[in-house]
Amino acid sequence: MGEKKKPGTEKTEKIFFLDDPELRSEVPLEYLSHKEKYEEAIRKACKLFEKFNSLKTKGKVTELGHGTFIRGLETTATYDPKTEEFVLNSPTLTAYKWWPGGLGHSANYAVVVAQLYARGKCHGIHPFIVQLRDQETHEPLPGIKIGEIGCKLGMNVLVQDVATYLKKAVTIATRYSAVRHQSQIKPDEPEPQILDFVTQQHKLFPFISTCFAFVHAANWLWDVYNNVTGELETGHLDNLPELHAASCVLKAVSSADASQGVETLRLACGGHGYMTASNLPRTYGLVTAMCTYEGENTVLLLQTARFLIKIWQNKTNLQNLPTVKYLETSLYRNIPFEKSVKWIISALQQTATGKIDLASRHINERVRNGQAYEDAWNNTSIELVAAAECHGRAMIVEIYYITVQQLKEQTSKELGRVLEQLLELYAVHTALRSIGDLLRFTNVTGKDIEVLQAWLEELLAEIRPNAIGIVDSFDIRDEVLSSALGAYDGNVYERLFAEAQKSPLNAEPVNKSFHLYLKPFIKSNL
Amino acid sequence: MGEKKKPGTEKTEKIFFLDDPELRSEVPLEYLSHKEKYEEAIRKACKLFEKFNSLKTKGKVTELGHGTFIRGLETTATYDPKTEEFVLNSPTLTAYKWWPGGLGHSANYAVVVAQLYARGKCHGIHPFIVQLRDQETHEPLPGIKIGEIGCKLGMNVLVQDVATYLKKAVTIATRYSAVRHQSQIKPDEPEPQILDFVTQQHKLFPFISTCFAFVHAANWLWDVYNNVTGELETGHLDNLPELHAASCVLKAVSSADASQGVETLRLACGGHGYMTASNLPRTYGLVTAMCTYEGENTVLLLQTARFLIKIWQNKTNLQNLPTVKYLETSLYRNIPFEKSVKWIISALQQTATGKIDLASRHINERVRNGQAYEDAWNNTSIELVAAAECHGRAMIVEIYYITVQQLKEQTSKELGRVLEQLLELYAVHTALRSIGDLLRFTNVTGKDIEVLQAWLEELLAEIRPNAIGIVDSFDIRDEVLSSALGAYDGNVYERLFAEAQKSPLNAEPVNKSFHLYLKPFIKSNL
Repeated sequence: MGEKKKPGTEKTEKIFFLDDPELRSEVPLEYLSHKEKYEEAIRKACKLFEKFNSLKTKGKVTELGHGTFIRGLETTATYDPKTEEFVLNSPTLTAYKWWPGGLGHSANYAVVVAQLYARGKCHGIHPFIVQLRDQETHEPLPGIKIGEIGCKLGMNVLVQDVATYLKKAVTIATRYSAVRHQSQIKPDEPEPQILDFVTQQHKLFPFISTCFAFVHAANWLWDVYNNVTGELETGHLDNLPELHAASCVLKAVSSADASQGVETLRLACGGHGYMTASNLPRTYGLVTAMCTYEGENTVLLLQTARFLIKIWQNKTNLQNLPTVKYLETSLYRNIPFEKSVKWIISALQQTATGKIDLASRHINERVRNGQAYEDAWNNTSIELVAAAECHGRAMIVEIYYITVQQLKEQTSKELGRVLEQLLELYAVHTALRSIGDLLRFTNVTGKDIEVLQAWLEELLAEIRPNAIGIVDSFDIRDEVLSSALGAYDGNVYERLFAEAQKSPLNAEPVNKSFHLYLKPFIKSNL
Repeated sequence: MGEKKKPGTEKTEKIFFLDDPELRSEVPLEYLSHKEKYEEAIRKACKLFEKFNSLKTKGKVTELGHGTFIRGLETTATYDPKTEEFVLNSPTLTAYKWWPGGLGHSANYAVVVAQLYARGKCHGIHPFIVQLRDQETHEPLPGIKIGEIGCKLGMNVLVQDVATYLKKAVTIATRYSAVRHQSQIKPDEPEPQILDFVTQQHKLFPFISTCFAFVHAANWLWDVYNNVTGELETGHLDNLPELHAASCVLKAVSSADASQGVETLRLACGGHGYMTASNLPRTYGLVTAMCTYEGENTVLLLQTARFLIKIWQNKTNLQNLPTVKYLETSLYRNIPFEKSVKWIISALQQTATGKIDLASRHINERVRNGQAYEDAWNNTSIELVAAAECHGRAMIVEIYYITVQQLKEQTSKELGRVLEQLLELYAVHTALRSIGDLLRFTNVTGKDIEVLQAWLEELLAEIRPNAIGIVDSFDIRDEVLSSALGAYDGNVYERLFAEAQKSPLNAEPVNKSFHLYLKPFIKSNL
């Protein structure tokens, strides 16, 4: 691969189908249809596998009955020493390779992940390049049943990331809220822009700031990923578990929050948010899919929890583990409350530490009461998921804080202040949504919460005049936004009307069903 | 109307389109096409209007630019004393009547809500029966532009209620979780049913209990509605504001929770939850629409808040207002913690009272600082919405508690215990999701929260063996459930496979696009 891709886009998925466009840069297209160069393609593909096989494998690996738990795959590849061939077999219905989508109709070759059997012994899962279709006729080869799996919610495009979807939704909803007028705040005054309702600002602005939070977190993760994979090449593996734990929790928290965000923003557009023409339903479909693919969120949070509990119980030296070293000092830190992002970060870290400590104690207690460690783990898993989530939120706010301090040095005072307002809004919003945990694990008081609530309201008012400017700065072209509600010119009603006129039902003034069914029915009742 | 309908289904909407099937029982179909009986139809429709005009008008009233705020409608009906006719006019694009859906193609008549002008003076909004189409040809009459408005998310069926959607989703997800096996809790043991993962139980079981909570709340509301409308006929209006406040908050909380529930349940089914064949995406589309239609949820919560603040600030005698009389005694009640539903109800009531009191003080403070009452209200609206929501949750748990006490007397001890477990789960789940508020406004402690958390985990384990039996008791026919994942026989994979084979893409082994595009493209690159 010429340039490195962000983690999450650079996944094993792309090497399972050799006609994947991303792969073409690595394995030239001619290898896919030139039999004489087939071996070269395998060599290259194997090299790619080598490069990625330290990463989680999923995607095209999945079988109808087998998802995240790859060791349970049923498909077998049995080595026949007489012919020196591997015989691939999906023995049951649940062993069907599932989820390949449209590639099932376009790919000539696939890399199939299967249990390798040789001399009667299973050697675990391995990838095999398999020819699926005839290269001339494109007909499936004998013994291969292949097709598409049917309609699914929001799985038609899979390339953009969480922040991009959220940016789109927040641009649409914020612009629409500036065009839409409704109700009256005061009698005898005109209907205000709905953007002037504080409840509406509360639905929109935290998600504007969330876009920035996720972009910074993604950039941070990308840098860490590059450092760690650079180290891998020199045989240095120490930072891999921390990277894995961080990427799991960031994926889970960001996809869950972005999904909730897009849906909140859609609902903030009232009835028009249900129109396909708003592009909000489709955007939701795409972003919610991210909660499941590339690792189901609960499974990922439990992976992060496993790392956290391990270092907590082993009292690992955390000085070289930047994302978790706060655990060493946070448990009863109780920094006095102040109206600052730094205090919020410290409170979130203390809370995460408290939750990890508590979950760890509950596991130990269950083990002491005679449960196997695995059962104790399962029985504590609600708390473990919550602990990992809190750790992830603390991490995102801290990364956002550090980034804004750097950005402020490179920009005007005025722009710096806007960046700071957005950071503060994200931090206060995060603190207030976690307020139960903060009350439980820090010394925050009811009076402090009133200060946080008032701060939130101040920030909404401060951001209001710049809200449109900020979403405009995301610079999403109308063609990409593809929304009657969110276009740059604000001509919402004209666009909605034009879209409605395209409905096939409007092609003729009287639908044929009237003559076929309605009219005879009415006449018969006369 | 022969029998009374539940509030929410009996709305003015049904009298705007005379071909509405619900209406046909009232206004015989022949009136709709027999001109000579047209006057009789008007008389009957007017009588219906009379009966309903004390209720909120929405639905077919809505214009492209005007939703909840009906007073802002732009369509005019100008009385011409010379001809003794009303001239109806939608003067602008935003005045278009919007959202009538398919009725725009099937209705001959509509009741159009418009601003009545006579002798140059506006007399506010009134309903007018308007002929839309020729009765013989069905062609739109001159001057009438009519059609369908385009695709929208989940607005195709609108008759079932919140609990029904949630029951469907929870039946599908629970049955699927008993069929699906994944991962290992212990090494070298077979993959367990995913229903045995505590995180999975935590996604499913609270929503099983929520179904019961909402059914009981709906039945309670229906009884109150009948009592209050009975009183209306005797001129007794005192209980109308309380009914209005209760129905607003119950609609808002139940539709929001059910939407979140259906989506949680869909995500609990992993990748298969995205398949159209699971019927979960469609169910979500239908239930989320309920957050917006018949009153947008935030607007409704603010209506309830207005009632709560009014009685709080006026120190109204609450003895005859059953849903709010707790406000008189709850503020600093601080009943000592115990592991009981009664304690949870009292804690939620104390919390709701605390939030109402705080929001009320913040409004007064803003007014003292020079803000107009309306601005102070808007600036406090985030807290007002939260206070109303908390009041609604306390109400639902209390109704559920009272109902289960009654049901236990009529049933076996064993079934009674199951009903109680579900009630307890709903109560603990509600307490834990509101734990930040409880910590802030009651004397609950961190130790108490550990007791609640352990109680939650106990209940999940107790409900586990009965989970399938409980969802089976909802008795939803496979044809209605319409889900490959949720059918009674548990043949998930067979059904998914059969559905996939129906995909039009699978009609032929090689899609024509291969010959048209892919093959020439591959050849050109050779």
